[in-house]
Amino acid sequence: MTLSDLVARFQYQETLDSNSQLKTLVLLGTIDSEPAILSFEKTHFNISLDELESNKLPIISIKEIESNDVYHWGMNLLESNINTTPSSKINLIYPATETHIRKFNKPKFHVIVETPELYQSIVKPYIESMKGDRIKWVKNILYEGAEADKVIYKNDKFILIPDMKWDGVTLDNLYCCCIVYRDDISSIRDLNINHLQYLQDISNDLKKIIPEKYPIKANDLRIFVHYQPSYYHFHIHIVNVNYSGLGESILAGKAILLQEVIDNLRFLGEKGYSQKTMTYVMNENHKLWELGMNKCV
Amino acid sequence: MTLSDLVARFQYQETLDSNSQLKTLVLLGTIDSEPAILSFEKTHFNISLDELESNKLPIISIKEIESNDVYHWGMNLLESNINTTPSSKINLIYPATETHIRKFNKPKFHVIVETPELYQSIVKPYIESMKGDRIKWVKNILYEGAEADKVIYKNDKFILIPDMKWDGVTLDNLYCCCIVYRDDISSIRDLNINHLQYLQDISNDLKKIIPEKYPIKANDLRIFVHYQPSYYHFHIHIVNVNYSGLGESILAGKAILLQEVIDNLRFLGEKGYSQKTMTYVMNENHKLWELGMNKCV
Repeated sequence: MTLSDLVARFQYQETLDSNSQLKTLVLLGTIDSEPAILSFEKTHFNISLDELESNKLPIISIKEIESNDVYHWGMNLLESNINTTPSSKINLIYPATETHIRKFNKPKFHVIVETPELYQSIVKPYIESMKGDRIKWVKNILYEGAEADKVIYKNDKFILIPDMKWDGVTLDNLYCCCIVYRDDISSIRDLNINHLQYLQDISNDLKKIIPEKYPIKANDLRIFVHYQPSYYHFHIHIVNVNYSGLGESILAGKAILLQEVIDNLRFLGEKGYSQKTMTYVMNENHKLWELGMNKCV
Repeated sequence: MTLSDLVARFQYQETLDSNSQLKTLVLLGTIDSEPAILSFEKTHFNISLDELESNKLPIISIKEIESNDVYHWGMNLLESNINTTPSSKINLIYPATETHIRKFNKPKFHVIVETPELYQSIVKPYIESMKGDRIKWVKNILYEGAEADKVIYKNDKFILIPDMKWDGVTLDNLYCCCIVYRDDISSIRDLNINHLQYLQDISNDLKKIIPEKYPIKANDLRIFVHYQPSYYHFHIHIVNVNYSGLGESILAGKAILLQEVIDNLRFLGEKGYSQKTMTYVMNENHKLWELGMNKCV
């Protein structure tokens, strides 16, 4: 059956998501009694430089709404064509499973307060269970030359690679990842006053090296760590400070600026981050949520 | 001249912005030799529940791109109509001034490191200059009953109002603002160990009151302060933790969780935040940037 045939048989049940900022719409329904998810996303403007420079905007008509001083606004109709200027992208998942449907449900984040005691009793054992084979891919990058073609820079302290969310080229959303050559730091919980100079050296290196490799200034780099991180081998995120399209990843409650970590170490004393109460945001599908963090709010 | 006439005379010069996520396009050009800014934003889907429930999707045609297992995708052409389903919103600023044009240039954020010395020499004098008349509107809300109809809750410690970015109803993007009844705290720089219980009490109040007023749980509230704040009378932001569409406002580098502030106070001692080096993100159009913060990177 073609996509057209399938869509024609779609029976609407409910709207899973509708985002007026991103112009996306996700519908749940059935096709021949089986679950189907039908998603739409409006296309971006596709006006060539040729059209622009010859002042041939593909506008069919304009309906003026209001005009006030130098401000004029209205709605318009643009030329459209299924091949070059379609209205929207369309995606169909059919038959859709329960997992597909759950994925489209909005993320369920919650704020949790992790005391040093909860860290010791729940989080630390979990972290230990997430090492070994779970981070073999990290070890492969560090010690076995995996993804060697992607390495931006390497010294005796760390290896710098483009994050998989970055194309390695577009400066606007520059996103690099710095993985350290130390196996004894699983997360910031393991940091204390003895790591202060070590972290400051890495920070200085990053602010020197990245601007040498890409046309960006040191003070245009947002350098941070995550708690909880997605894997438990200490690593640092570096993104273009003007890029904010990363969702929870760079929000207060998940991201902590490296320089703030360094400065906090001055005050946290010998025990460092292990004695701090950490307040952060966790998705309820994180394994730690069910392991007991759902109770510590 | 009508908007149509004006747009027809638009002579393209350059593209100021093109955002494929938000589907927006901003063009700079001239109309009759005077600067003009022409902006477009694709409309959101406007499919009524009636159309959905009667399975009448306004699709003219679908072009299948690929199909793989349960995944099918393509492009489509939707019915369009200048009155009910226009292609995009159109905005014209004409004649545009240099200020208009500058506003459309992308924000220029930078990371700055504010030492206690820089706070004393540059920031503190600036903060003093931003008090008095500049925050009269805050005093009016606190003491003169301004915006009284909007007040959600009030006690002897603070007043709680909906942030102006929130409609006061939609739970998804709940955004409240808590302004305290104390004139001696301009920013977190003024906080020290003596404020610990005071802040914890406010935090506890907020987590009790807001869930009583709205159907949201205490652990679904992201409670934070800004540094730099937009006005220098201590206030606290409260948003739905699942809402991330706030740009820089809730990013690490601008927002600091209130609970993190409280916990840091335990370690920062008598002098509190005044002795801390603060790393944060500043827009270069902030007055402090030119006052000297552009040098402290």
